[in-house]
Amino acid sequence: MREIVIGAAQMGGIQKDDSRKAVVDRMLALLAQAAEAGCDLVVFPELALTTFFPRWWMEDQAEVDRWFETEMPGAETQPLFDAAKRHGIAITFGYAEKTPEGRYFNTSILTDRSGTIIGKYRKVHLPGHSEYDTERAFQHLEKRYFEPGDLGFPVWRNLDAWMGMCICNDRRWPEVYREMGLQGVELITLGYNTPAVNSQDSAEGLKERLYHSELSMTAGAYQNAAWVVGVAKCGDEDGHPLMAGSIIVDPNGFVVARAETDGDELVVHACDMDLCDFGKRTIFDFARHRRVEHYGRITGQTGVVLPDEAG
Amino acid sequence: MREIVIGAAQMGGIQKDDSRKAVVDRMLALLAQAAEAGCDLVVFPELALTTFFPRWWMEDQAEVDRWFETEMPGAETQPLFDAAKRHGIAITFGYAEKTPEGRYFNTSILTDRSGTIIGKYRKVHLPGHSEYDTERAFQHLEKRYFEPGDLGFPVWRNLDAWMGMCICNDRRWPEVYREMGLQGVELITLGYNTPAVNSQDSAEGLKERLYHSELSMTAGAYQNAAWVVGVAKCGDEDGHPLMAGSIIVDPNGFVVARAETDGDELVVHACDMDLCDFGKRTIFDFARHRRVEHYGRITGQTGVVLPDEAG
Repeated sequence: MREIVIGAAQMGGIQKDDSRKAVVDRMLALLAQAAEAGCDLVVFPELALTTFFPRWWMEDQAEVDRWFETEMPGAETQPLFDAAKRHGIAITFGYAEKTPEGRYFNTSILTDRSGTIIGKYRKVHLPGHSEYDTERAFQHLEKRYFEPGDLGFPVWRNLDAWMGMCICNDRRWPEVYREMGLQGVELITLGYNTPAVNSQDSAEGLKERLYHSELSMTAGAYQNAAWVVGVAKCGDEDGHPLMAGSIIVDPNGFVVARAETDGDELVVHACDMDLCDFGKRTIFDFARHRRVEHYGRITGQTGVVLPDEAG
Repeated sequence: MREIVIGAAQMGGIQKDDSRKAVVDRMLALLAQAAEAGCDLVVFPELALTTFFPRWWMEDQAEVDRWFETEMPGAETQPLFDAAKRHGIAITFGYAEKTPEGRYFNTSILTDRSGTIIGKYRKVHLPGHSEYDTERAFQHLEKRYFEPGDLGFPVWRNLDAWMGMCICNDRRWPEVYREMGLQGVELITLGYNTPAVNSQDSAEGLKERLYHSELSMTAGAYQNAAWVVGVAKCGDEDGHPLMAGSIIVDPNGFVVARAETDGDELVVHACDMDLCDFGKRTIFDFARHRRVEHYGRITGQTGVVLPDEAG
């Protein structure tokens, strides 16, 4: 038994005018609650420090830049790392990263129990679009404000387990889980900011959207025999609803814990990493069963090539 | 609207002593029922013509060979093709194939409305083992009696849609759906013979096994914006229970029809191929969103390589 008590720290909406300090205080409150609950690891959402700003069209780069962190920890985020160290809790959260070279990423970091950053991931699958889209009910400009991650899908040893990260829309792509699965991942953490309505299909309801989110995470967990923890930023952000539905999924693909609200809420579950072993040894023993000679299109082409175009 | 009325022709158990003729007669009855229901396509299970013989340990090759077809159609299967042509219904079913060169595959074929074979698929992901396993509650010797398929995952034009096939355990592997998705597949059909108990974990119940089957198919459908039709051979085969759970899944990942019995049963649904378009144009527009530069392990390695072994 290799038990990690995980706290999925769902967060309610963050308004445009909320200060970093106000947000960090909410995160510190969740961390204190997690310490009470005996957590070893706390997982915060994507872009945990700010509102989901890619919904806003901005032309002034200075206006864009204020959503980004130029250092991590920085003055406003240092208290998170101090609290992690004080409680002996590893943490992971997402934020908008501006590098010294002036590159922009949708990033998440992972610390150990001492509050030291041991892993960084930059979102690979950016949804949405890069120019103003008059056809949409609202904008989703991730392709405008970020470039795709350049770090791949690394896996790190932490808390006596193999851990990896992805972010939001990444969770819908089976390639993401498989890249980490092929490194023996036992726990995948991810945060998301998912609008409660589809900007391109107003008929798609919240129930469908929650189903798709859960379907992707449960399948990724099962097919790689790994725990998956998905944590929402949800609730209302300046009139824009984000869906909740934070879940902890076991390596059999079953949801073992879920959020009940659409606000700040800590969902706690004791996760035994040894539960990954059965699947990894039997039905998903990749070495015995995968047939890479037939997977060539997955890396050989990006988009669809119809058979009559293949020539 | 490009509607294909699909009949998922679930079949109950086939005993060792059942003749090919007896089985073909059952399939003809299902075909006649499908014609009544206005079906355009009927999907039969994996190894539709025989019992699931890989559960039996056999050392005499002549004994093994009697489960295999050396021609398709052959004398005993010709009536299926004649009926397909007469009804103007395309069909697909699985069978054990022995080639003129003496190679053995777990195969399925697809016909057009005239009963002409237009596609063949050979199962790539063979589960189980090749030698007698004393640790198992029963044997699962697919790796003994078959070699892995050598045809990849082709997609064909049929009934004004792009169709592909896979077989049984293939459905648990996201690579399978993605290979076809990258060819623009709109409908994936598959058959399965899945034991109702896990030969290596007696505590795993039928409910869990049905969940895993459905999870894999619904995720594959959603993540590739394609219809998926999964058809069981189920019920009792000489005291060995196979699970049922045949389903038709829409391109949003929702189950729209399911079998209610664990015997011969036709599940009918009118499937609009145009429903694939929205997902393929938006969230799963591969050309815009996939990042193949980060998928290298998927084709570059077969089994797990832990980060500390990667060197």
